[in-house]
Amino acid sequence: MRILITGGAGMLGRKLAERLARDGAIGVTPVAELTLADVVEPTVPAGAAFDVATRVADVSVPGVADDLVAGRPDIVFHLAAIPSGGAEADFDGGYRVNLDGVRLLLEAIRAQGYGYVPRVVFSSTIAVFGAPFPDAIDDTFHLTPLTCYGSQKAMGELLLNDYTRRGLVDGVGIRLPTVCVRPGTPNAAASGFFSNIIREPLNGLEAVLPVADDVRHAHASPRATVDNLVHAAGIDGGLLGDRRCLTMPSLSVTVAEQIEALREVAGDAAVARIRREPDATIERIVSGWPRRFDTARADALGFRAETSFREIIEVYVEDEIGGVLP
Amino acid sequence: MRILITGGAGMLGRKLAERLARDGAIGVTPVAELTLADVVEPTVPAGAAFDVATRVADVSVPGVADDLVAGRPDIVFHLAAIPSGGAEADFDGGYRVNLDGVRLLLEAIRAQGYGYVPRVVFSSTIAVFGAPFPDAIDDTFHLTPLTCYGSQKAMGELLLNDYTRRGLVDGVGIRLPTVCVRPGTPNAAASGFFSNIIREPLNGLEAVLPVADDVRHAHASPRATVDNLVHAAGIDGGLLGDRRCLTMPSLSVTVAEQIEALREVAGDAAVARIRREPDATIERIVSGWPRRFDTARADALGFRAETSFREIIEVYVEDEIGGVLP
Repeated sequence: MRILITGGAGMLGRKLAERLARDGAIGVTPVAELTLADVVEPTVPAGAAFDVATRVADVSVPGVADDLVAGRPDIVFHLAAIPSGGAEADFDGGYRVNLDGVRLLLEAIRAQGYGYVPRVVFSSTIAVFGAPFPDAIDDTFHLTPLTCYGSQKAMGELLLNDYTRRGLVDGVGIRLPTVCVRPGTPNAAASGFFSNIIREPLNGLEAVLPVADDVRHAHASPRATVDNLVHAAGIDGGLLGDRRCLTMPSLSVTVAEQIEALREVAGDAAVARIRREPDATIERIVSGWPRRFDTARADALGFRAETSFREIIEVYVEDEIGGVLP
Repeated sequence: MRILITGGAGMLGRKLAERLARDGAIGVTPVAELTLADVVEPTVPAGAAFDVATRVADVSVPGVADDLVAGRPDIVFHLAAIPSGGAEADFDGGYRVNLDGVRLLLEAIRAQGYGYVPRVVFSSTIAVFGAPFPDAIDDTFHLTPLTCYGSQKAMGELLLNDYTRRGLVDGVGIRLPTVCVRPGTPNAAASGFFSNIIREPLNGLEAVLPVADDVRHAHASPRATVDNLVHAAGIDGGLLGDRRCLTMPSLSVTVAEQIEALREVAGDAAVARIRREPDATIERIVSGWPRRFDTARADALGFRAETSFREIIEVYVEDEIGGVLP
């Protein structure tokens, strides 16, 4: 089985490549070849028993996607995207990468022809939804994005559905919730604090909490997210019917519940490293975000997320800091 | 007030131009100038007290939209589209006209700059929805198109919302139900019979009914549809918030109710001209269509449709055959 990952240098692309290197297969089918493409040089995962090629390539430049699919990969993970803040700041860039990029990829696959209908796993986002929300957003709630990023991803979903319906690709779109605990260092994203208040204290550092403790949000770990990408690659597309895009399972917790889980795992000293510094702007942004999802479709199809925030923290400790608290 | 209508040679474009010629204004603001653009030469409406220009122009060809908006029209009615059957048969043409056309138009408006933020009235469609449906499709039901046309229009809606949110245009999208009674001659559209079984008998001709009498569908007359386009041009955009696209009101009736209304208006002789000839293909297509809408948002904003099918027939008789039965 040949696999292509666009966005292969991103956090999820890298973790997905590492996972494939570890497993050597998707389901029972061995991986023969993996191509990692990104606008910056991707890292070859350690220990892969199959060929790994890296490509510095921007899929939103006409012609590039044609090169990338010329080897007719069986599975294409399309993760390349300009994220939320970036797409809002760079209107043209966001539409180019997040809309034209998907379309060029689908067209490149279509142009291959001769019965080439690969599984395309598309990373979408819960940002396809916008306030006002019901308490829990179910699988039939309408697409009402309030950001460029959400709008572009919603259009990508529509393309994926339509190209799949026409038999040109075999698409599965998965709407990712906020990934937590995000590894690395604090970033400027408005959602950053959900991870910061866990990761920084676990590493002996101070973190700022800009919102009230009763703010509720939906999370899944990077590991669960990669599990779901792999699951989407192997699932029977016929089970999805014409609705190829699914909201992924997530764990809905309050900030207070996050903090109590941190206390269980790492004690009062860790919790004491969270400094409350209310930020009206972030409070306002976050108040417009979904708090809970009813993901009956994805649950029934075998997609999974953690069921306690303690588990999410333990995944971070195991996967990012070697299984022991510093 | 300067007005541009794309798709100005189509059935709705022509009727909209005639309506503007008759009224001479939208609300209290007089029309100063009307441009009708289409891929075929549009007809200048009779009796207009303002300047009317016609342009043979394809808005989906790069550069054309820039020319069309160079005069900075205050209101742009974007009606140009490849319809449902055409977009399904011509995959590339459908995406070019129905997706790229909208995007090029919005980009052309954006490129004008200097505070140019016209009202853009976009004709969308109930084909943005796809089965399975609830009994009545409400304003929060998700976009699940099952045709290229519906997919492309849904993407147009997302673009219109996003460009409006960013202050680049002032968009209102209206999802049109099946227009009935459609003037002209029978066409190949699967939905054609809803109009054929009324129009043909009223004109002394035979019509074929390919589905069962208990088939239910949602309709509005061409007159109500044009009323709603004009209403969309004048409405306070602030009332729509970030959800700029609305399902238009419609009348949900069964074929049996259509036929009884025909009997009331034109008697048994007209009804006798309907020949039942079941067509399994059309039955199957129609079974996947919406039957009823709950259009609370549009109702509250003053959009309207007929409330009886007799009224829909009377509109046809008044507007198309001079107010008297032949």
